[in-house]
Amino acid sequence: NINGPRLLAQLQTLAAIGRTETNACCRLALTDEDKQGRDLVVGWMKDLGMSISVDPIGNIFGVRPGSQPELAPVMTGSHIDTVRTGGAYDGNYGVLAGLEVVATLNDARQNTERSIVVGIFTNEEGARFAPDMLGSLVYVGGMPLDEALAIKAIDGAVLGEELKRIGYQGTAALGVHQPHAFVELHIEQGPLLDADGIKIGAVENLQGISWQELTIVGQSNHAGTTPMRLRHDAGYAASAISTFVRDLTRKMGGNQVGTVGHVVLTPNLINVIAARATITVDLRNTDEQLLQQAEQALNEFLKSLSESEGVTITSRRLARFEPVVFDAALTDRIAHHAEALGLSHQRMTSGAGHDAQMMARICPTSMIFVPSVGGISHNPAEHTEPDDLIAGANVLFATLTELANQ
Amino acid sequence: NINGPRLLAQLQTLAAIGRTETNACCRLALTDEDKQGRDLVVGWMKDLGMSISVDPIGNIFGVRPGSQPELAPVMTGSHIDTVRTGGAYDGNYGVLAGLEVVATLNDARQNTERSIVVGIFTNEEGARFAPDMLGSLVYVGGMPLDEALAIKAIDGAVLGEELKRIGYQGTAALGVHQPHAFVELHIEQGPLLDADGIKIGAVENLQGISWQELTIVGQSNHAGTTPMRLRHDAGYAASAISTFVRDLTRKMGGNQVGTVGHVVLTPNLINVIAARATITVDLRNTDEQLLQQAEQALNEFLKSLSESEGVTITSRRLARFEPVVFDAALTDRIAHHAEALGLSHQRMTSGAGHDAQMMARICPTSMIFVPSVGGISHNPAEHTEPDDLIAGANVLFATLTELANQ
Ligand SMILES: NC(=O)NCCC(=O)O
Ligand SMILES: NC(=O)NCCC(=O)O
Repeated sequence: NINGPRLLAQLQTLAAIGRTETNACCRLALTDEDKQGRDLVVGWMKDLGMSISVDPIGNIFGVRPGSQPELAPVMTGSHIDTVRTGGAYDGNYGVLAGLEVVATLNDARQNTERSIVVGIFTNEEGARFAPDMLGSLVYVGGMPLDEALAIKAIDGAVLGEELKRIGYQGTAALGVHQPHAFVELHIEQGPLLDADGIKIGAVENLQGISWQELTIVGQSNHAGTTPMRLRHDAGYAASAISTFVRDLTRKMGGNQVGTVGHVVLTPNLINVIAARATITVDLRNTDEQLLQQAEQALNEFLKSLSESEGVTITSRRLARFEPVVFDAALTDRIAHHAEALGLSHQRMTSGAGHDAQMMARICPTSMIFVPSVGGISHNPAEHTEPDDLIAGANVLFATLTELANQ
Repeated sequence: NINGPRLLAQLQTLAAIGRTETNACCRLALTDEDKQGRDLVVGWMKDLGMSISVDPIGNIFGVRPGSQPELAPVMTGSHIDTVRTGGAYDGNYGVLAGLEVVATLNDARQNTERSIVVGIFTNEEGARFAPDMLGSLVYVGGMPLDEALAIKAIDGAVLGEELKRIGYQGTAALGVHQPHAFVELHIEQGPLLDADGIKIGAVENLQGISWQELTIVGQSNHAGTTPMRLRHDAGYAASAISTFVRDLTRKMGGNQVGTVGHVVLTPNLINVIAARATITVDLRNTDEQLLQQAEQALNEFLKSLSESEGVTITSRRLARFEPVVFDAALTDRIAHHAEALGLSHQRMTSGAGHDAQMMARICPTSMIFVPSVGGISHNPAEHTEPDDLIAGANVLFATLTELANQ
């Protein structure tokens, strides 16, 4: 069994980096806080005797060599960047539980045949640079490196420059340590396990994700003197899109979700009709067909809105990933190990995007979920009970060591 | 007749202060740019031989003495602060046309019985500090000085401190130069005169203004994992209020207008349901009863929205002014002088708030409007034809000199 107190202590130490006044974790990708977090975890990897490689998109890999180095390694890991007001566990848990598996093997002086690799992927959150899961996407060859390095942050910074600035543009080949299999442990970030009182989720599949940024250009004018019928109000158009997205999810039902989380108006003054608005739209569905339907419906709404309000609306694609089905045999093994450890478990879908979603393109991949209290995530109040964190790490240990001796 | 080229040149000189890359005027109240504008215009007042007084809320008065100093003066004026992306004429025109009246009298060595006072009122726009028309409101005793000095700007600055910082907290008594009558010349800022091809508006009344800031507190959560029915989305609630305001104006018809010009979400990220939103609502109507109806309907909507979305919504009153009816005899004189100068004219309502609206509480007051091309204002493209600017100033000259010799 893994050493629970050690894992919990490391989670707390990492969570202290970038902590805000409201007790949130703020380690947006490639900021100074992200660098501090990376330095800390790389130090821990070295303490465990792992060798480190960093690739040109800033993914970090710690390797514990197996007894048969000619075999492809098994890989686990996740990310340590956070949203602006994040919690302590999203991503961090998967990385530190991976290190805890290595530490437990070290303590027991136990060898594995295959090497075990713990990965830390760059910019998983997508909160500073879109798309999300960027590091793993580039790792699996889903986006050219040059294109990724040129991405602009919401604060205007350029990804490649930020990567250099914090000293994490490495020279390892992209796709280094091509794994035999990939298993990611993560908090659910949704309400299902908690509501059902289940300890372990064996993740079967993951929703498709459609992100776009919409720029609406209207005409600024006086809020008192301009008759309603003469307005070209970019702020009103933004709000109409947001309420349309809500109505659309209601009409479609099922697991269609939709969110407008980002809105900026110009000039953003009380008595000036907004000249310009920038908003983001996040649409997700487990069914690719339905997701396309949602995108199509939004598109048609944008056309009719731009005519009725007399505004122009342009769209920039920020991310588009189809739903992913994980390796059924690996998901079975996760359920099996949960069972063997006496932990209640169920098959489930992931609502969040994860690096496992990209890794599934190149090797058998699955995920282990543990409950999020109240289903709260991307929120400083994000919480998972310590016992559940430890239980998840034990399932990871069993799954990884089995894979590593195959 | 006034000297048109001189007036136009001064308007251009003032417009160059605070000019932005997009050719907008940005002289938000009590900023460095506002100070530069004030210094320039005070210099011009001195050049005209006027004596200057500044009161404790920063209103500036230039006085051209009459031959009978025991009589109450006649006053004109307006403001020189702008919104963030304003035009060259809003406010500035009324102040500089007042100076042009004085310059014309000086040129003709013509005396008036009553003194003529040109006022520059502090923070008319309300774009940096709410409420709007603050300087004239305090001047007429509508808000205690202490309360006004404590007002916080949208950028967090405190009004009294900013006033001191730019050196415009004067010592003249509040209400100094209590006028016999007040006439304000202004661009219409709306589309009516331009659409009808009329040169002069004789303003009969002015809409009631209701401003509030709404703060919506929901719960941040993950945009992918949180089922729609479990959301407490402050961003969605903000958009629902904005679309409600639009629907309300459609339902009420008449001259009811409503605008949500300011929206700020927290944390404002693509994949995080917003925890918090701050928005403003600007409602206006010429009919106090109908304006109250609109406020009431909004209130009821906020109640039901806060229940259905599970968010709290709190309101802070930023401004509330009842509709104002101007002095009918003075409006008649304005129409008369337009007629005498051979200018087409019509009676009309003001959709914008103006300092005249406050001055109407203490003396016979009315306004002269000139056309705004396309009805565009609070926009860098704000424009009035030079001939129309000159025509308006001639009506002001005739009206003021008549009043000053009464
Ligand atoms: N796990 C997680 O929060 N990933 C961020 C990308 C997403 O929005 O799903
Ligand atoms: N004239 C003018 O634009 N005043 C600003 C106050 C308002 O919003 O009406």
